[in-house]
Amino acid sequence: MRRVGVVGVGHGKFGNRSDASVQELAFEAYRAAVKDAKISPEEIDASVIGSVPEYMKQRSLSGVVQEYLGLNPRPVWLTEVACASGSAAIRTAWMAIRSGLHDVVAVVGCQKMTDLSTPEILALMGRVGEVQWESVFGTTFPGYYAMFAQRHMHEFGTTREQLAAVAVKNHYYGARNPNALFRKEITVAKALASEPVASPLLVYDCCANADGAACVILATEEKAKKMRSDVVWLDGVGAATASMSVLRRPELTGLPSASEAARQAYAMAGTTAKDVDVAEVHDCFTIAEVMAYEDLGFCGKGEGGRFAADRQSWIGGSTPVNLDGGLKSKGHPIGATGVSMAYEIVRQLRGECGERQVPNAAVGLTHNVGGIGQYCFVHLFRRD
Amino acid sequence: MRRVGVVGVGHGKFGNRSDASVQELAFEAYRAAVKDAKISPEEIDASVIGSVPEYMKQRSLSGVVQEYLGLNPRPVWLTEVACASGSAAIRTAWMAIRSGLHDVVAVVGCQKMTDLSTPEILALMGRVGEVQWESVFGTTFPGYYAMFAQRHMHEFGTTREQLAAVAVKNHYYGARNPNALFRKEITVAKALASEPVASPLLVYDCCANADGAACVILATEEKAKKMRSDVVWLDGVGAATASMSVLRRPELTGLPSASEAARQAYAMAGTTAKDVDVAEVHDCFTIAEVMAYEDLGFCGKGEGGRFAADRQSWIGGSTPVNLDGGLKSKGHPIGATGVSMAYEIVRQLRGECGERQVPNAAVGLTHNVGGIGQYCFVHLFRRD
Repeated sequence: MRRVGVVGVGHGKFGNRSDASVQELAFEAYRAAVKDAKISPEEIDASVIGSVPEYMKQRSLSGVVQEYLGLNPRPVWLTEVACASGSAAIRTAWMAIRSGLHDVVAVVGCQKMTDLSTPEILALMGRVGEVQWESVFGTTFPGYYAMFAQRHMHEFGTTREQLAAVAVKNHYYGARNPNALFRKEITVAKALASEPVASPLLVYDCCANADGAACVILATEEKAKKMRSDVVWLDGVGAATASMSVLRRPELTGLPSASEAARQAYAMAGTTAKDVDVAEVHDCFTIAEVMAYEDLGFCGKGEGGRFAADRQSWIGGSTPVNLDGGLKSKGHPIGATGVSMAYEIVRQLRGECGERQVPNAAVGLTHNVGGIGQYCFVHLFRRD
Repeated sequence: MRRVGVVGVGHGKFGNRSDASVQELAFEAYRAAVKDAKISPEEIDASVIGSVPEYMKQRSLSGVVQEYLGLNPRPVWLTEVACASGSAAIRTAWMAIRSGLHDVVAVVGCQKMTDLSTPEILALMGRVGEVQWESVFGTTFPGYYAMFAQRHMHEFGTTREQLAAVAVKNHYYGARNPNALFRKEITVAKALASEPVASPLLVYDCCANADGAACVILATEEKAKKMRSDVVWLDGVGAATASMSVLRRPELTGLPSASEAARQAYAMAGTTAKDVDVAEVHDCFTIAEVMAYEDLGFCGKGEGGRFAADRQSWIGGSTPVNLDGGLKSKGHPIGATGVSMAYEIVRQLRGECGERQVPNAAVGLTHNVGGIGQYCFVHLFRRD
């Protein structure tokens, strides 16, 4: 089977980017990826945009970005699966290359979140849930994840302090990531003293909306090997879905789509959770990272809170997680997030992360959730 | 090279479907396709949704549809490239199968257009064009295509009567398609007597918004051959892009993305325009069908108007086009349109179209345009 390799990655600053349009953000990340790949744009056969256009004023986003990148008349398509749109874009680019249709594909995750006001965003996001029986009664995203947290606490004795430990770690590493939105360390005490959002979740349990973009360039095995010696291979692409409504879920302490996507990705890459040296997981809320540890098999069911508090997800622990600060500290430009995760993993596997570097990382994983787990994409990356 | 075959197709009624939600429309088409394929839903590995979610109230559309189809926990992704979203979905499903990732993929194009008022739709559609220099001055879709028509008339002597001939043909065949929105024949005189929209385009030069859905199920060569003897093969997938702004186009009498996508698809399938027995083209306006004849090579540059008036695109002519009534008479649920085109071509190649049947059709083409030609997807289908 032909492998698909990552030959270039680029990333812009996440945050309130009122200085740039969405196509400018896309170009910033794309230009960095082209430079990193040391290729000419003429070698790029197609591009895929990961984004959720409804949060932005411009329509027909993929055409706008394609033209701004200077890639006309080459094909473009946009993938949208809520907050997992970036990973869906990577997945279809992988298919495009493996199918023999294209040799080199640029994947750009890009998103403006600050075109709209916070109430507008909350209203839109609420409608990502179940509109007939849930959001109509006021359920918003923090509310959903608060339910997960309540249940996790009830069943496994997970504590607020353990949730706060996730935020502390992600702020610690985010403070060391120049692309992150929040670059300041916090303490458990500070996290626990923050305002309530949806009990038991406090402000420091929640990630922040941000504008931003990231880019990865994928290529066939043959081309990738010619382009660089430190190719990172995308060897496993898992994806699964779950019900829109939490009422129809068998349990509330994990995401069934995540464990299924992980199963697929591990099988495809011939790896297990034990092989993962570094991971990026979808910490839209601290409880989401705790559930991810369990769904991905980094620890046993119900042990996620302790895993965080014991610093098993720090560098030096059993599976370092979100060393770029995660959604929590880096910010969450929803369409860009999945591509941003891939960016971090590729750089970790190349050994380029400086003080945030996991020594000798060879296998990396991304876990990107859409909605409240309606979608989950798990990708496994490896260096030779 | 492994081929990708169409093993099932389904289509619902297009029109004002206030009787059904978008997921119900999707299910209607999907159920028909599953029945046509004579497969169990368990055999479907993944699905792709072609849609433009911003026209609808529900967010996270692909998750809603996936659950309603009963396909959880299998993967789903949504593709969006304006009015070509359905063809982009087919293209990524083709990639998924050819890449070896999935064996059987259901593609559902589905769209509600009647959730919003006409002014809301016009405002959204205007923003599909260039927002900085064009839509801000009031340019809407009819305005763009009116410019194309004016220029085509100026350069080639194309007449209003020739444009009307396109509408007459599409209404003639639409009257014979039970899924079409408008099922009544018209005359050239009636078309020419209709109200002006954007000079020279009149009401009968414009397609109508509609709700609707269509589904095609694709499979690997091996599985397809086991499933049915009359497999229709998707042998060519071409796609290209062009500038958002008409100001940056080299010409206004054709769509450069269409001729480029056609070139790719013909080359891939080893066919030429002369081989095409039946085609579905994107007649959002009558001038768009005239330009498509030329861009696809059915006639020479500037000859499209005469091609229509000479009935070369009727059954019995050199290349019968839009025998389901086209967007003009069938209606245009934007995300569903590309899949609806594939539905018609597959049934033509299987010989199932009754009084609308092209005798012995063996090669069929779909031409699906996004925006004002920012995207074009050309697919070539063939039966053995």
